Amino acid sequence: MNCILLDKLVTQDSHHTQNSYHLNNPQQINHIRHILKLGVGDTLMVGELGGNIGQATISHIADSQISLTNLKLDTPPPAKLGLTLVLALPRPKVLRRLIMDMTALGVDKIILVNSYCTQKSYWQSPLLNRLDEFVFEGLQQAVDTVAPVIELKKRFKPFVEDEFLALVGDGKSVVAHPYANQSWQRYLQVTRAEGLAMPNVLCIGAEGGWIDYEVGLLQKHGATAFSLGSRILRTESAVNVLLGSWFN
Amino acid sequence: MNCILLDKLVTQDSHHTQNSYHLNNPQQINHIRHILKLGVGDTLMVGELGGNIGQATISHIADSQISLTNLKLDTPPPAKLGLTLVLALPRPKVLRRLIMDMTALGVDKIILVNSYCTQKSYWQSPLLNRLDEFVFEGLQQAVDTVAPVIELKKRFKPFVEDEFLALVGDGKSVVAHPYANQSWQRYLQVTRAEGLAMPNVLCIGAEGGWIDYEVGLLQKHGATAFSLGSRILRTESAVNVLLGSWFN
Repeated sequence: MNCILLDKLVTQDSHHTQNSYHLNNPQQINHIRHILKLGVGDTLMVGELGGNIGQATISHIADSQISLTNLKLDTPPPAKLGLTLVLALPRPKVLRRLIMDMTALGVDKIILVNSYCTQKSYWQSPLLNRLDEFVFEGLQQAVDTVAPVIELKKRFKPFVEDEFLALVGDGKSVVAHPYANQSWQRYLQVTRAEGLAMPNVLCIGAEGGWIDYEVGLLQKHGATAFSLGSRILRTESAVNVLLGSWFN
Repeated sequence: MNCILLDKLVTQDSHHTQNSYHLNNPQQINHIRHILKLGVGDTLMVGELGGNIGQATISHIADSQISLTNLKLDTPPPAKLGLTLVLALPRPKVLRRLIMDMTALGVDKIILVNSYCTQKSYWQSPLLNRLDEFVFEGLQQAVDTVAPVIELKKRFKPFVEDEFLALVGDGKSVVAHPYANQSWQRYLQVTRAEGLAMPNVLCIGAEGGWIDYEVGLLQKHGATAFSLGSRILRTESAVNVLLGSWFN
């Protein structure tokens, strides 16, 4: 938690925005009191959900509430990657960290899609009701304020056939596939050498990857398949390694 | 587990290497029986620890042992990154996944070092006795057979002052530091544009990063400091994102 995220502030009249705030979130209160060990008069980094980043001063501390004053939010949030990540819904166990990392790295839009290797039970996971919470954690980790859009697509074929082309628009799409002929390394080399834009849609399978039918359907809708070489990575590792190509 | 790792095979005479093998590892047996759902006569991907990768055929299955025959190990393991990663010892909770990922991505040598932000209790964690197990998991994930060397350095200053220069040798070292002026993006651009070799030593802090003294001491010993931009990443995410620059 490198930044305490506040709800949208209220503009009180045309010249004044709310200048004090009462924090009631137990995780945030615990973090300020027991990790940062801050007291009344100390300043800390805060951000307004969807707005700017800046500082605030602690004016009062109680067990279940911390009051902030002197809100100075003058720094815009960091740029996003300009990327939609289409991810086969992974095991619930890794979902929280994946959502946090994709958020922290600045993915614009996350589409969790069904795939052959996605077990049906994954769609029943109660963690799917907590995505906003994981996004919030990712934003506070990365000192960002703008939540990525998250969409769930429980049917792969209609998603690709009816929505994929519009999603890519004038951009380019790629799909990670261990058995593709072209390597990601080569794809990046060509993209850099020719000064081309990076793809704006990246598709990554979860454990077990995509099956040939799925890669084929994505290719039929314009996606270029690439492999990461012979090493097979955990989904979390693959997502972070690949996002690094946009991030750096 | 994309490959079942076998212990070093015995060369029986100058022309013949052991051609059958008895698996006793409960995780491997469980994986073959219940995840891969293989039976007698099926083939699977295996690798010899420190040796080649290839296939074997299941000749017998029992609750606590699986016998393999027809070992054909003809593919060399994938290349490593040519990189030593100096990592401030992280929280035990993330140690397993970090060791797995660094192994899977092909780091040659992992040095876990003390830092100001490393809590003393981390060095008492029983997980530090299980590093070989996490390496084994990482190798089986990535279909590799060559374990990275892991060293623990409980004292930061003597490590940097007495060992760091020899570690870097004729190469280059870099240290990730959120407050460095130069960005990693810029460092990579220059390295690529000028056709320079990538650094062979990368230093990454854990939660809380390095303190100025630590970065200063590394810089004094030749390391170039860089930041990943304004977004602050979890250690796991930062390690994978950065290793992606060597991996791709």
